[in-house]
Amino acid sequence: MRRPLLLVSSLAIAAGLFAQTPAPDADAAMLRRLYDAALTDSPMYGHLGELVGRFPGRLSGSKKLEDAVQWGKGVLEQQGVDRLELQPVMIPHWERGAPESVRFIGADGQASPLAAFALGGSVPTPAGGLRAPVVELHSLDELKTTDVKGKIVFFNRPMDPKAVNPGDAYGGAGDQRNKGPGEAGKYGAVGALTRSLTHALDDVPHTGYTGYPDGVPRIPAAALSTVAANRLSAALKADPMIQAELVINSHWFENSPSHNVIGELRGSEHPEQIILVGGHLDSWDVTPGAHDDGSGVVQSIEVLRLLQATGYKPRHTIRCVLFVSEENSGNGGKEYARMVGEKKEVHLLALESDNGGYQPIGYQLNNPAGDAPARAARWRALLEPYRLNVFEKGDGGADVAPLLDRGATVGEIIPESQRYFNFHHTTIDTMDKVNPRELQLGAAAMAALVYLVDQHGL
Amino acid sequence: MRRPLLLVSSLAIAAGLFAQTPAPDADAAMLRRLYDAALTDSPMYGHLGELVGRFPGRLSGSKKLEDAVQWGKGVLEQQGVDRLELQPVMIPHWERGAPESVRFIGADGQASPLAAFALGGSVPTPAGGLRAPVVELHSLDELKTTDVKGKIVFFNRPMDPKAVNPGDAYGGAGDQRNKGPGEAGKYGAVGALTRSLTHALDDVPHTGYTGYPDGVPRIPAAALSTVAANRLSAALKADPMIQAELVINSHWFENSPSHNVIGELRGSEHPEQIILVGGHLDSWDVTPGAHDDGSGVVQSIEVLRLLQATGYKPRHTIRCVLFVSEENSGNGGKEYARMVGEKKEVHLLALESDNGGYQPIGYQLNNPAGDAPARAARWRALLEPYRLNVFEKGDGGADVAPLLDRGATVGEIIPESQRYFNFHHTTIDTMDKVNPRELQLGAAAMAALVYLVDQHGL
Repeated sequence: MRRPLLLVSSLAIAAGLFAQTPAPDADAAMLRRLYDAALTDSPMYGHLGELVGRFPGRLSGSKKLEDAVQWGKGVLEQQGVDRLELQPVMIPHWERGAPESVRFIGADGQASPLAAFALGGSVPTPAGGLRAPVVELHSLDELKTTDVKGKIVFFNRPMDPKAVNPGDAYGGAGDQRNKGPGEAGKYGAVGALTRSLTHALDDVPHTGYTGYPDGVPRIPAAALSTVAANRLSAALKADPMIQAELVINSHWFENSPSHNVIGELRGSEHPEQIILVGGHLDSWDVTPGAHDDGSGVVQSIEVLRLLQATGYKPRHTIRCVLFVSEENSGNGGKEYARMVGEKKEVHLLALESDNGGYQPIGYQLNNPAGDAPARAARWRALLEPYRLNVFEKGDGGADVAPLLDRGATVGEIIPESQRYFNFHHTTIDTMDKVNPRELQLGAAAMAALVYLVDQHGL
Repeated sequence: MRRPLLLVSSLAIAAGLFAQTPAPDADAAMLRRLYDAALTDSPMYGHLGELVGRFPGRLSGSKKLEDAVQWGKGVLEQQGVDRLELQPVMIPHWERGAPESVRFIGADGQASPLAAFALGGSVPTPAGGLRAPVVELHSLDELKTTDVKGKIVFFNRPMDPKAVNPGDAYGGAGDQRNKGPGEAGKYGAVGALTRSLTHALDDVPHTGYTGYPDGVPRIPAAALSTVAANRLSAALKADPMIQAELVINSHWFENSPSHNVIGELRGSEHPEQIILVGGHLDSWDVTPGAHDDGSGVVQSIEVLRLLQATGYKPRHTIRCVLFVSEENSGNGGKEYARMVGEKKEVHLLALESDNGGYQPIGYQLNNPAGDAPARAARWRALLEPYRLNVFEKGDGGADVAPLLDRGATVGEIIPESQRYFNFHHTTIDTMDKVNPRELQLGAAAMAALVYLVDQHGL
């Protein structure tokens, strides 16, 4: 239904029939105003400093996350919105407990510590830890042809350096972390180690979610730094009989109540139709989460500010959503989509930022008709001066993707991401990794698309 | 003359007349091979570590630069080239001498030090230093309407934060550093201070070239960090009568002999026609010069390696030139262009990397006909998978620009540059600021264009 409407709108522009339809030069001027507002005197980097500095490790179920929820509400309140809501969401509560340890034991009985983090969601090891021989694999398929019974499986396939887009490399190696431990459990393994998902060669372990299928033994799992993975691999080559020792003290608690934070500017013509911008408030427990996803949170808040700062009166309702529990359940996004279905809300666009606060290069979009990137590309001439050249197909971030089935156009901004996975889910995803201007350009790129969709539909 | 030739070549592709003209899918496969070679097992980051670690502060006239020349020759030699040449170039020799100091003296007589670097080329202060009242200006025009006689002029116009491309902001504020001191001298000022050219607000001073017009008094000049500039500005607002004290111990020596390093792979069909890649070996004296222009140097060397590693036999001669004295004379580039004219050499393309080793987003190009960007854009579909989307008009870096008048197509790769000017001409332009993959993607982007021009002309 949006397509015929858009054809009308395009004809209207061509014929100049409706006064409220801005001419292309009005669009260009508005985009310039949005960028000017973003690049001068923005409070956004300060907001990021607060979020990252006061609420590091804001994992689902933690007090830090609940404090961050209140902080997000407070920032939107102070900035000024027409409506503010805390949407209840039940989220998982997993805790790492006392620090994990991973060591390998050489033939001489000497133990060598390896830099590691338990994977998010891992079950604990038995009291006193777990010690077993190690078998190195490079794919889940090898489980079918390898005797892993009673062993610790070590998935050591690196991210593909040949992928130009590191996100593709992350996706290509991610099954080892996401599903590897669960699958290894099926085949009788007693523990799992995975190579950290990064192109960097350093001693920084990267945590992240791992899931277990129902009805199979759940085995404890940890990610090794890439340096530790290389050390373990070399030690195994020298002596395939070495054992590893794994201690994980994690604990699953009952699900706990939390909230998505929703703030909106009411539309002047179609308040019932919504354009959404969002990011996720939660982070892994070990990280300040500056890029993931502090950036997306403060950029989404900033989009509302930019529209206000330029005096723009949106035709549709512009809604900022700060989701909870993206990292270890996606419940914030799922519950939001459920509510949208229940209320029969119409979303023209749901645009996320969850790939880091780097210089944006374009948009990834999808809609039920599958033509969203091509449709957005009609604004190429307006966006190219801001170095926004990429219009790709993609279902948005995890939090907005469920809205595709509700008829929404979903998407995310694409930032330059060569550095992103060096810091992703680590202790070093810190403020100093975020460049203020790149962060600002990302918010402006979101605001630009929001404005264009508000004026012309997508 | 290149255009008619190209039309023939295009027709040849369409008709499939010549076996040696690869089909577009052969081009795509070759680009993929170049990228694969760049992204796996490249020695380039190691080369950068050597250049930056062993030869920091490799300014014209220094032993460090001459050692870097020998190093560059050695790397090319070891890598294997068909011809290696050291082209003699006379270059300036300016030295900073003992560390400079800049202080302002409050009404209470207390001196406050300000973080500063003498500008490159600055004359020294009189023995014992210089002390004078300070007048803050924001443009060179204000010299005409302000009494600056006997005073230290303080140019304090920031780089425009609204410019999306920091290079534009750098250009927009650069006259204060490039020409400000020279112009201020005309009007009787006795010294000059300039705000460092950066968007960053920190205490890191940025040096850089300043020039004096002939026949006017040459006054000593230094750049203040942006924090120091703000402090001085605030102090002047509180008390316009405060004085500054400036000590610069620089010295100009006789020009000294140096060399551009030239290494080439001989073309199989048209060895007399040249495709050039280059960067500049010299850096300012205070900086490791990792981005400026260590990156361009190692990327240019890497282009030859990538062509060799993929087994490619170039039709035209591919030449890597490591220029000297870009920073304070441009003599390397000028002498190279003079030699080209003298030998009547034909350059199909001269492609530079001198905007930092960040993720490349496209190419800036120009040719005598002015249509080089549009012509290169015909390869958009081949280059977009590598996130190369920008084809802009520009005369290349300072070293290849003089070749435009010799009929060459000149240009440079465009890297993402939001962070570049934070480190430019400072002590903090260090290895850790360069991401290995971004550096590799830059070299691959250069090699891709070199290959396409070698096959199809531009």
